Amino acid sequence: MDDAAKKIALRMITYGLYVVTTAHDGDLGAATINWLTQASFTPPLVVAGLRADANTLAQARGSGAFAVNVLGTGQKDMAYAFFKPTNVEGNKLSGYEFEPAPSGAPLLLEAPAWFDCRVHEIIERGDHHIVIGEVTDAGVRREMAPLTLAELGVFYGG
Amino acid sequence: MDDAAKKIALRMITYGLYVVTTAHDGDLGAATINWLTQASFTPPLVVAGLRADANTLAQARGSGAFAVNVLGTGQKDMAYAFFKPTNVEGNKLSGYEFEPAPSGAPLLLEAPAWFDCRVHEIIERGDHHIVIGEVTDAGVRREMAPLTLAELGVFYGG
Repeated sequence: MDDAAKKIALRMITYGLYVVTTAHDGDLGAATINWLTQASFTPPLVVAGLRADANTLAQARGSGAFAVNVLGTGQKDMAYAFFKPTNVEGNKLSGYEFEPAPSGAPLLLEAPAWFDCRVHEIIERGDHHIVIGEVTDAGVRREMAPLTLAELGVFYGG
Repeated sequence: MDDAAKKIALRMITYGLYVVTTAHDGDLGAATINWLTQASFTPPLVVAGLRADANTLAQARGSGAFAVNVLGTGQKDMAYAFFKPTNVEGNKLSGYEFEPAPSGAPLLLEAPAWFDCRVHEIIERGDHHIVIGEVTDAGVRREMAPLTLAELGVFYGG
């Protein structure tokens, strides 16, 4: 395989940006991801690729749940904030206010939309694990265009 | 769950457009999809959601392989062409020239990039099945911006 071609071809997959959040045993987790897609209407399934060593993956496995906070256009600072280890202080996650989702996972109040998921299955293959979740609840705070990886101006893939 | 909120929130996931192609037992298949994401760097895995009744899904299962043709900005006609049943005539699929990938799946010459995949696992849950593939080969014909679902102006999700 031509590794340079593989990198360019895989980087042509289009992505948005999301903060995956989790709660387990009194700890909260949050991480910005872009590897996410819906995968069924009925039941409503989504699939996310989470780093094998991510705190959010361990918490999703432990709690059986995770939430996805969809970022909106312009929310680049939020995307970058959750690329770093999460800092929990009172009702703020790395400086961003949250409230609990029905599953207990934190929902970022500034994110325009969210969905709460029950973990169906985790496929442990590769440096990221494939988390299949069923959407159990959802909310929209503001209808706006999503933040895309192209807008952020970085690549994560290849 | 608030179904209207679920629909809006899930439609805020950002997507590109791809033609998944397959070959099995002398038959060829092709279908435009948007539910696709990378899911690991090492090994390079991708995940696609394919309709449970799709010919491409049956052929990917039978042959153990599929290819992904990434569409480029402006290639709306190609995206629409493969929403319909595929018509094979000589070296054309629904009017678009192709050549075989290493796996045998057809590669559309007008698509700017492609990757060939070996099926790792198919998760049969829901109205679309979740196909996990390992990228085994890839090629780039032209570097260009990808066609997005937003550019096409339709939704497939919710």
